Amino acid sequence: MTVGREEIGQRSETVRRANLSAIVRELHARGPQTRSALVNRTGLTRSAIRGLIGELAAAGLVSEASPQRLGTPGRPSPLVSLDPDSASVLAIEISVDSLAVAIVGLGGVVIELTRVDRPRGDASVNEVVGVVAKLTRDARSRRRSSRRLIGVGAAIVGVVRRTDGMVSIAPNLGWRNVPLGARLSDALGLSLPVSIANDADLGALAEHRRGAAVGVDDLVFISGEVGVGGGLLVDGKPLDGIAGYAGELGHMSINPNGAECRCGSVGCWETEIGEDVLLRLAGHPDDLGLRGVDEVLRAASENDPVALAAIDHVGHWLGLGIASLINLLNPRLVVLGGRFARLHPYVGPVVEAELDRRALAAPRDLVRVVPSTLGVDAPLLGAAELAFEPLLADPALWLGRRDLMERASA
Amino acid sequence: MTVGREEIGQRSETVRRANLSAIVRELHARGPQTRSALVNRTGLTRSAIRGLIGELAAAGLVSEASPQRLGTPGRPSPLVSLDPDSASVLAIEISVDSLAVAIVGLGGVVIELTRVDRPRGDASVNEVVGVVAKLTRDARSRRRSSRRLIGVGAAIVGVVRRTDGMVSIAPNLGWRNVPLGARLSDALGLSLPVSIANDADLGALAEHRRGAAVGVDDLVFISGEVGVGGGLLVDGKPLDGIAGYAGELGHMSINPNGAECRCGSVGCWETEIGEDVLLRLAGHPDDLGLRGVDEVLRAASENDPVALAAIDHVGHWLGLGIASLINLLNPRLVVLGGRFARLHPYVGPVVEAELDRRALAAPRDLVRVVPSTLGVDAPLLGAAELAFEPLLADPALWLGRRDLMERASA
Repeated sequence: MTVGREEIGQRSETVRRANLSAIVRELHARGPQTRSALVNRTGLTRSAIRGLIGELAAAGLVSEASPQRLGTPGRPSPLVSLDPDSASVLAIEISVDSLAVAIVGLGGVVIELTRVDRPRGDASVNEVVGVVAKLTRDARSRRRSSRRLIGVGAAIVGVVRRTDGMVSIAPNLGWRNVPLGARLSDALGLSLPVSIANDADLGALAEHRRGAAVGVDDLVFISGEVGVGGGLLVDGKPLDGIAGYAGELGHMSINPNGAECRCGSVGCWETEIGEDVLLRLAGHPDDLGLRGVDEVLRAASENDPVALAAIDHVGHWLGLGIASLINLLNPRLVVLGGRFARLHPYVGPVVEAELDRRALAAPRDLVRVVPSTLGVDAPLLGAAELAFEPLLADPALWLGRRDLMERASA
Repeated sequence: MTVGREEIGQRSETVRRANLSAIVRELHARGPQTRSALVNRTGLTRSAIRGLIGELAAAGLVSEASPQRLGTPGRPSPLVSLDPDSASVLAIEISVDSLAVAIVGLGGVVIELTRVDRPRGDASVNEVVGVVAKLTRDARSRRRSSRRLIGVGAAIVGVVRRTDGMVSIAPNLGWRNVPLGARLSDALGLSLPVSIANDADLGALAEHRRGAAVGVDDLVFISGEVGVGGGLLVDGKPLDGIAGYAGELGHMSINPNGAECRCGSVGCWETEIGEDVLLRLAGHPDDLGLRGVDEVLRAASENDPVALAAIDHVGHWLGLGIASLINLLNPRLVVLGGRFARLHPYVGPVVEAELDRRALAAPRDLVRVVPSTLGVDAPLLGAAELAFEPLLADPALWLGRRDLMERASA
């Protein structure tokens, strides 16, 4: 088979763009690095790295600085960093208890973050979108600089069709078939792509890139908002299902003789480990919210038997469901997010005992259960990562700087 | 970035081998095709296809024949076929009730297939491996020809570590930590690679390639042997988990107040939809086996209320578990294998009703539940596909024909 000149040209251009992507991804995920480290990480030659870094530097995306001498002989390898001001994204979270907006710079630098409480229960789409737009205007006016926003990512506590940001159902907001992508796009008026995904999926993404699951490619993330959601990562890629609906862990059938679930079914996982269950069993009104959870944890720390029994109930059922997930998915890591991260010191041993009893020995021996390290902001940080994705995938095309663009379309 | 000559040479060799793979995969999966169809399927140019087909034909792997004229003007496009005699594999299945051996030719042509009953219960590894070796010798002696065996694939009703064919547990055989890969390799004495996988995973692979799920890349396959296993396909790739243990659907916790499971847990899905449950509820001894299932189906066809109620129980719990899987994985298709395929005419409506009640509307609207079309042989045919995989992935290297090998290593 012969390879024509034109074909080689196209192929080397494709390779060049893939290599730019590899470098920007590395720097974005792991922070400043020497060229030598980039050679090791990417497998590219030193001369290829030099050329690509040169291009990125010319476009203002990266800078190089000599690190302090460490007493080793020879010229120190310069440290390559992304400039967080060269491209930033708007991250949005629509949660049960709060709305949040952040501006995040390339490299994952949080430049601005505002979170405001919202009352639980059904929400007007107009109102939510209005608040988000106002928070965004405020954040941008505080940070009026040369920062270039390149995209918008939003996390929502609901079931989302990724392709167009249609929220098919968000029970905690009382939403059904809300075209959130279009609504946000209109309200923000930024002429930028708006990507929307489920909050737990984005929590998983953030924990994978910057939290408890760095370096772990097979992951179950269990979000503990009011309800229970989840994000699954398989071989480093999100398991979205055919339309982005996968990962609704809270709606595994786990106790067919259990309570009715908001989703219309009976005995979903959520009906045994949801926040309302914890509060009710601990003797609080089941709509007391985060204050109530704080109260239960405080009481548990003082060995209050009612609080401990309530936490124990949640731990038992948590372990039961995790055992199922281990048998189904054979992951390396289970990350307990949100409320469950805070419960982890109390429920850890109960969960482990349930896994010993209920998970098959082979996959059970290979898995660890750990608390989230990003806590409540995991979904918001994941939304930022979602918005960065097009840039990371193809820095040359996306940035639209003339010098890069010309080469990309050459 | 400049691209050196050597680099181009390597890259075009890589591309050539990937293209050979694409063509052989196409012909293997879909049967004989015209060059025009291959152009459409692979996206390769007509001249590239011509060159690659030429190479494969020179190596004896494919042949071309003019199809019968269909009254259309012009020269008919010749039909490209794989020669099933050019490479074949040995497929093995170790099941609860039977042992099977097949010789399958390239393109999935079953050349020879023998299945023998085995008594249920604990099995001696020596005995099983001995029977398989004898069946293999017999099959090969009946087919003494120029067929070249290129690999061995085995399906087993157990949990398998794919890397080395270690069966960590096969409860229905009473096996724990059996190095089946090594044992089969010794007993067969064929100096060929032996790949082993879980029977349900291989059932899923076979249904995907040649059965009810052709063209469907997101799939839950539920095997209905004595126990309940499963194979998951995500984006066309098996979801194996980090060590090949994923897909143990039968051990989802589904009824915590239910019966003890052989795995040591309580209320696994298997304890509600396993064969023994169906038989017991239908008034038969629960170890009556396939004969018993036949009997239940016969009675159901005559509207026997006890048989219908037993089937209904299984259908109800089947639907409940499938609803969980839909909420977790958002698949396009659920394929009912083995016993469940035979029950499908009776349980279909119950299952659908449970899905309406328990699965979230968004993913539920996108999924279909269908019976397997390959029936009992799905895992065996999947084992053959497993053994073909190295050849399909890199025909040039694997075949070892001198003409191809020389180019591959040039």
